Amino acid sequence: MTLLFTDPEVSAALDAATTVDAMRAALLAAYEGRLVAPPRASAPLGGGRMVLTAGHLTGEWYGYRSYDTFGHPESEQLVVLHDGRTGAVRAVAVGEELGSRRTGGLGGVAADALARPDAVTLGVIGSGRQAWTQVWAVAAVRPLREVTVHSRSAARREAFAARVRTELGIAARAVDSAATAVRDRDVVVLATTSEAPVLDAAQLAPGTHVNAVGFKQLDRAEFGLDLLDAAELLTTDSPAQAAAYQPPMLAALPTYAGRLRDLGAVLAGAVPGRTAEDQISVFCSTGLAGTEVFLLDRLARVGAATS
Amino acid sequence: MTLLFTDPEVSAALDAATTVDAMRAALLAAYEGRLVAPPRASAPLGGGRMVLTAGHLTGEWYGYRSYDTFGHPESEQLVVLHDGRTGAVRAVAVGEELGSRRTGGLGGVAADALARPDAVTLGVIGSGRQAWTQVWAVAAVRPLREVTVHSRSAARREAFAARVRTELGIAARAVDSAATAVRDRDVVVLATTSEAPVLDAAQLAPGTHVNAVGFKQLDRAEFGLDLLDAAELLTTDSPAQAAAYQPPMLAALPTYAGRLRDLGAVLAGAVPGRTAEDQISVFCSTGLAGTEVFLLDRLARVGAATS
Repeated sequence: MTLLFTDPEVSAALDAATTVDAMRAALLAAYEGRLVAPPRASAPLGGGRMVLTAGHLTGEWYGYRSYDTFGHPESEQLVVLHDGRTGAVRAVAVGEELGSRRTGGLGGVAADALARPDAVTLGVIGSGRQAWTQVWAVAAVRPLREVTVHSRSAARREAFAARVRTELGIAARAVDSAATAVRDRDVVVLATTSEAPVLDAAQLAPGTHVNAVGFKQLDRAEFGLDLLDAAELLTTDSPAQAAAYQPPMLAALPTYAGRLRDLGAVLAGAVPGRTAEDQISVFCSTGLAGTEVFLLDRLARVGAATS
Repeated sequence: MTLLFTDPEVSAALDAATTVDAMRAALLAAYEGRLVAPPRASAPLGGGRMVLTAGHLTGEWYGYRSYDTFGHPESEQLVVLHDGRTGAVRAVAVGEELGSRRTGGLGGVAADALARPDAVTLGVIGSGRQAWTQVWAVAAVRPLREVTVHSRSAARREAFAARVRTELGIAARAVDSAATAVRDRDVVVLATTSEAPVLDAAQLAPGTHVNAVGFKQLDRAEFGLDLLDAAELLTTDSPAQAAAYQPPMLAALPTYAGRLRDLGAVLAGAVPGRTAEDQISVFCSTGLAGTEVFLLDRLARVGAATS
């Protein structure tokens, strides 16, 4: 019998620790070659495209996420999990929660692996769904004492800070500039829809770890090359996907590609992570394909679905 | 709220008349350019591929069918229906019923448009799911008086005949050769998994209409070129898909492509259908992309789903 998960059920069943744990396992599986995640496939439908990102955990499961590019107001994604032995559809998730928690979970793994062990403060630019799941996941890997948040809308950043206090039990302040939000922070999250830089790397304290979730391409990025120049440690969840962006991802440009590390390799101990307290580390999130299905597999094991 | 349909619910909610009616509307929409149905997209997953056939009925809905090529024993397909205005997922169908009823419905439209108006007998070669839905759909467009069925397994063809009697209330006989099954029949259905011809065109009576559902490619076809040579009327549900087969579809080879007609164009009255009682007509079913979503849209309007 196929399980159907909607957003409220995903929210209720998937805690941050489980999500981060699943994404750590996914990154290791991808690094070890057990998670097959090909480039996305798409079909043009006149005015938009239907896009499929598929994954296969050898011997366990296969499946995909689908989404479209029509830009409709209530557009929903689908994640589908097939049993790897029988081919039956074990579970389907409809909505946005699974995907954004997946991205949050990847950010949580990055922060856990790369932020200083004593990190306790977080500054976030952006107050949307992606900003939220990043903070939610980082709070599961570091005992955060204070969150500062900036976004263009005063009402939305205040609501975000209130949600951090209520749902995560962490002190939180909405601030009126990006510079204030990131000042003296151990962890910084960039999760905006901005196509132009929202911060100066010079505003970051030494030793800061940065999760970059929004646009990160040439001429379309929420940060500038100054951030990459400042970073001694540059990572991504998928070097292959990073190399495939069009326009190119900044961190995949020739100047930086040679030192862009696979987060999975860091987790596996194959390449070093942070080696000094004052290093700035940056995680460029691509959303490794197959990770949504990985997370749905976890959810199907623990969760209560509609049917 | 997303509706989830499983095979039993599809079976219970989709009658043959509704299905044939929906497929007639789909063929007309495709002919008129309102149904956008691009070539299939796929992602390689190591040992198999995830395949997506998408469709978009302009202004109404968009969606897709997904299936895989791993060859697992209980492999299930998915059909997904998005609302064309909001982007929300209105319905998901999991299993095999919707797809095979869709194919049956296309065959029913073909028989309705091309078989003689007084057709009352049907011979079918094959006794699987596709054979069944063809008979089920043709019975909705012609008052069938007798069905003859042949397949390699005596037990399966006897069971098929019994099912025709029980579920469709039509006299039915299992016979021990393909030649006997198609002798003096008004409608013939080929729905086997054979890669070699299962009949001689010379065995067909003048005026027979043939629905060909199984393999129909060069060196891999359940019928030979003799059937195409005998046919005065050659049709398909998608000339574009027919032209894209690899290896080539027999009816798309240079000798035949020029007279391969779009069933949608016949329905629209743009090209003639049968013009004489003794013509042999052949419908080469390709499974027009987007038709599964079309049928799910109908189902979502009428049906009772799990959730």
